[in-house]
Amino acid sequence: MTTYTAINLIKRPTGGPINADLFEVVQKQMPTVGEGEFLVKQSHMSLDPAMFGWMSPDTNSYIPPVALGDVMRSSGIGEIVESNHPEFKVGDRMMGMMGWQEYFLSNGQGLNKVTASLPDEAILSIFALPGLTATQGLFNVGKPQKGETIIVTGAAGSVGSIVGQLAKADGLKVIGVVGSDEKADWIVNELGFDAAINYKSDDLDAQLALHAADGIDLYFENTGGPIQNLIIEHMNPHGRVMVCGLIADYNKQVPTPGPSWMNVLKRRLTIQGFTMPDHFHQVPALLEKLTPYVMAGKIKHRSHVLEGLESSISGLNLFFTGENKGKLIVKL
Amino acid sequence: MTTYTAINLIKRPTGGPINADLFEVVQKQMPTVGEGEFLVKQSHMSLDPAMFGWMSPDTNSYIPPVALGDVMRSSGIGEIVESNHPEFKVGDRMMGMMGWQEYFLSNGQGLNKVTASLPDEAILSIFALPGLTATQGLFNVGKPQKGETIIVTGAAGSVGSIVGQLAKADGLKVIGVVGSDEKADWIVNELGFDAAINYKSDDLDAQLALHAADGIDLYFENTGGPIQNLIIEHMNPHGRVMVCGLIADYNKQVPTPGPSWMNVLKRRLTIQGFTMPDHFHQVPALLEKLTPYVMAGKIKHRSHVLEGLESSISGLNLFFTGENKGKLIVKL
Repeated sequence: MTTYTAINLIKRPTGGPINADLFEVVQKQMPTVGEGEFLVKQSHMSLDPAMFGWMSPDTNSYIPPVALGDVMRSSGIGEIVESNHPEFKVGDRMMGMMGWQEYFLSNGQGLNKVTASLPDEAILSIFALPGLTATQGLFNVGKPQKGETIIVTGAAGSVGSIVGQLAKADGLKVIGVVGSDEKADWIVNELGFDAAINYKSDDLDAQLALHAADGIDLYFENTGGPIQNLIIEHMNPHGRVMVCGLIADYNKQVPTPGPSWMNVLKRRLTIQGFTMPDHFHQVPALLEKLTPYVMAGKIKHRSHVLEGLESSISGLNLFFTGENKGKLIVKL
Repeated sequence: MTTYTAINLIKRPTGGPINADLFEVVQKQMPTVGEGEFLVKQSHMSLDPAMFGWMSPDTNSYIPPVALGDVMRSSGIGEIVESNHPEFKVGDRMMGMMGWQEYFLSNGQGLNKVTASLPDEAILSIFALPGLTATQGLFNVGKPQKGETIIVTGAAGSVGSIVGQLAKADGLKVIGVVGSDEKADWIVNELGFDAAINYKSDDLDAQLALHAADGIDLYFENTGGPIQNLIIEHMNPHGRVMVCGLIADYNKQVPTPGPSWMNVLKRRLTIQGFTMPDHFHQVPALLEKLTPYVMAGKIKHRSHVLEGLESSISGLNLFFTGENKGKLIVKL
């Protein structure tokens, strides 16, 4: 084999669904593995909502956008197939930001060796961005206390499902907001959430009053959308909002307004945005926090696996439609 | 004298200007001063934006609303004219929540002796709610660092003017948002702010870009209003917003929406509401923090004094029109 396939970003999204013309599929020359380098053959790539941020031109964002013409950024997992690096050998499983391509040449920087004997899908679903994000946001931003009530939007999503299970394991009352009855069933009956609210139902306020009768202390936000305004109205004094994602707004040119700050003032709320690139140096501590929950069998997951490198392009739109069932993963 | 005058709240505001029919002016019997009690003759009362919250029926607010038929809540200062309390003697100056009335009977709880030899107006303008609020919000919520840039809305107001001067004394770049050229002149040329922006001007975004060329790290919010959305667009990563007041929204039935959380996420902002009743136990520490700035002559103030108890009613509307010049005080 002398070439491999990669997908470059060549245009920025301007709202609406992600179209194939934002990308070009290219054949690249297989690289020569130099001294201190190794080559990874990716087996699975992760699709994450954060990718919409990476494609956007906003230079004020938390991470530089992918440059036009560069390989689309993504995290993934694979095996070393060739190595001239003393610390990494052929057959080692590696995880990290390898992008939309079949092979990745590395000097080791930014990649982590995978030691847990779990399948690729489980690694990408729990120990990669979703689990790290859930752990950082819930524990280090939200600072939950046993007995508090937390509401999680996008609760059947890759991050939300872990947040809810971690909170449940720590003795919180956990309410999940989802977009289908199937997902509602999954988070309550499989994951053990206390309640689920389908945001497409027409009595959201009544649902919130019913399931959060004692008010909401923590609000883990993955989606945005009009339910934001209602949730804020049900929050208790000194409530904390962790803003992790706003998928409902990623493909809008003008994002919808947020709630008035009147409740922020009257209820003395704290609303805090966070993104993982600020916390990559904390990854070892985050994994140390997360691992015991996983080992105790308290974190279930499900993966939605797409086949083939190019399926990633249309796969991104599943975030907008909510049709994915579980963590989106592309099998190469 | 066998009676004195008091003003009771008898109706709740429903939006728009404050009308006299929300209140009744009553004559009350002079009380008998019992054992362990003393009687204060109020000399000056403070009018504060927080009073709109105290009049509102919202039981989710940070402090119970004034009950209909009760004396309107307010802070003030006065002298003890009769005492049967061992620790307080006739002539002592007392400060605290004494309400809209000429006399206040107390057992000492909740009132503080005034020891600083400053005029009543200076005490109410600096060492009462405005200075305590400014100190708590700026230092304990905002955690400012030398060299950062802060923007303060309502910058010529009782709280904002102190926030800006404290920040300036600590080596921050200070931008004030005001509603008149006269106020802009005052905060820059008298108080030493680095820049002023009149929010009624038509090039707010350009003004922000000009005066906050390096972005905004701290945003002390007293007013609300459309400039909120623009300020958020100029904030630096990890910026902090202290929500202290939203005067532009107090007399609206439906508050205007806030900024989208997209910038909260991308810039990892923290938006935190705070109100003083949560921090009354910290008053000694706050005064200890504030006093050296005052003693060093770094905190200037100006008072707008209204004459007579009943002037407080229409006086509240000055907060909406912005016509007050300095801390609103009612002289009895």
